[in-house]
Amino acid sequence: MSLLTVGTVAFDAIETPFGKTDKIVGGAATYIAWSASYFSKKVNIVSIIGDDFDMNELEALRARGVDTSGIEIKEGKKSFFWSGKYHLDMNSRDTLITDLNVLLEFNPVIPEEYKSSDILLLGNIDPALQLKVIEQLPNRPKLVVLDTMNFWMTENFLGKLLEVIAKVDVLTINDAEARQLSNEYSLVKAAKKILKMGPKYLVIKKGEHGALLFHENEVFFAPALPLEEVFDPTGAGDTFAGGFCGYLDKSRDISFENMKRAIIYGSAMASFCVEKFGTERVKTLNHNDIEDRVKDFIDLVQFDIVLEE
Amino acid sequence: MSLLTVGTVAFDAIETPFGKTDKIVGGAATYIAWSASYFSKKVNIVSIIGDDFDMNELEALRARGVDTSGIEIKEGKKSFFWSGKYHLDMNSRDTLITDLNVLLEFNPVIPEEYKSSDILLLGNIDPALQLKVIEQLPNRPKLVVLDTMNFWMTENFLGKLLEVIAKVDVLTINDAEARQLSNEYSLVKAAKKILKMGPKYLVIKKGEHGALLFHENEVFFAPALPLEEVFDPTGAGDTFAGGFCGYLDKSRDISFENMKRAIIYGSAMASFCVEKFGTERVKTLNHNDIEDRVKDFIDLVQFDIVLEE
Repeated sequence: MSLLTVGTVAFDAIETPFGKTDKIVGGAATYIAWSASYFSKKVNIVSIIGDDFDMNELEALRARGVDTSGIEIKEGKKSFFWSGKYHLDMNSRDTLITDLNVLLEFNPVIPEEYKSSDILLLGNIDPALQLKVIEQLPNRPKLVVLDTMNFWMTENFLGKLLEVIAKVDVLTINDAEARQLSNEYSLVKAAKKILKMGPKYLVIKKGEHGALLFHENEVFFAPALPLEEVFDPTGAGDTFAGGFCGYLDKSRDISFENMKRAIIYGSAMASFCVEKFGTERVKTLNHNDIEDRVKDFIDLVQFDIVLEE
Repeated sequence: MSLLTVGTVAFDAIETPFGKTDKIVGGAATYIAWSASYFSKKVNIVSIIGDDFDMNELEALRARGVDTSGIEIKEGKKSFFWSGKYHLDMNSRDTLITDLNVLLEFNPVIPEEYKSSDILLLGNIDPALQLKVIEQLPNRPKLVVLDTMNFWMTENFLGKLLEVIAKVDVLTINDAEARQLSNEYSLVKAAKKILKMGPKYLVIKKGEHGALLFHENEVFFAPALPLEEVFDPTGAGDTFAGGFCGYLDKSRDISFENMKRAIIYGSAMASFCVEKFGTERVKTLNHNDIEDRVKDFIDLVQFDIVLEE
């Protein structure tokens, strides 16, 4: 089984109440690939970087079975760079710098050997590009998962975004984005509207408040693990999506019951991500770390009620 | 088994994005009693009202096995009245009117026949009064549960509040209050500090985001049910506390495992409360309604992961 992801591979500079970083490796596809690599045998990345990128990072990904041959390297150009500062609640942040650089030239071309990937995870980029990716695949993958953000829900991009949303199986967005996209405050009402736009499954991410999975008339709630510190939330949503898709890929089962498990695994991966800056923590996990963390999630919500007749 | 609660029985006027009410029956002890009455054989209330109160309400409570003989009726005086307006997110509200009226004269005297109640639930009132209640009981109840709010966490009252907190088994507060009381943003750190203040158990209520139960090094998370509408959140916390204590009273078991179940039952009761204005919904439940709602909670968080060795 294999997973194809298309998204940014980039540099970030991050400031949180706990500290700040210089330029470190970031980008949605980076977090997705690291996270999925603990589950998927083969993760294929399509992205674009400049020749300023840290090529050791690609080497490290390759060592984990990630195919980086779909990452275009633009000589003499700079990688995408984002800088942001988080507020105390860690749920809100200010963007300080967005240097698109090579991202302005990004025109994803899917290598022939990637085209039969089982799962496609579209990381957060311009929906016009996400659409181009879907159109390049001769056969529909077993599952198409879309991550996006509020930036694309504005006038100039909304039309294209709705086109993409209509073509995917799973949409993952946060609670504020679900409200914006549906124009409904209630997340239950928002989910009903969004499921009518095309996706069969909707994941609403609520950060420290967990995540909801909606499908037809069913709903599943996965908590977030209460942590002593959320050190840096950057990439948590991408890490979640990578773990979610990686688990589905590994287990070869895209039923609702298995998606519940995948959400728990995705949440476990995200809970590691926020413990350190950037990809630092997600790069150094092992199988036991992940199973122990999933056990923490089970213990957190496990209760035993026998209903009376 | 029996439950003693001390708190307000009052009038409210409520405005939400969905509508507004004239004066309707409210007060912490009212919500607690209605909610607990579905579990406890005997609920004893100590409170104070004016002769303007709707005496049919007391009759209705008595019909459910609630002993209202501990409610002092002040002739020629007015009942406590609170009026407030909720914002769209329903998590924040503005107080429009607070007429303390008879509450200024409240000096709770515990009737002899209430003194052997198994569980004491101290509703949100002046901590000096809560302390007086504890001091009147010749034998410590099996469990003492304290509800309070941010108003008492300010300079004039904090000393007394800390005295009460040191004497109880369970403290229930919301997330903002936990942060204020502990001066810690992280709820995990906040819980550690607060458990050192005396209580063996801490319940942190997060409204639409569920509730956390902390005990020693353990933590349990109960979700809130995703609802189409939160119509009126007034009394949801009291209804939660009433269901929580009522369930513990009925099941005669105050272990951590049973407290998890009690939190689910309390959350189920609170999910009914918010469906209509005031006590309207909590007054008209039956056993099956409650069991069906608890089933919804089980379905919401139930997943089945077999961990690998």
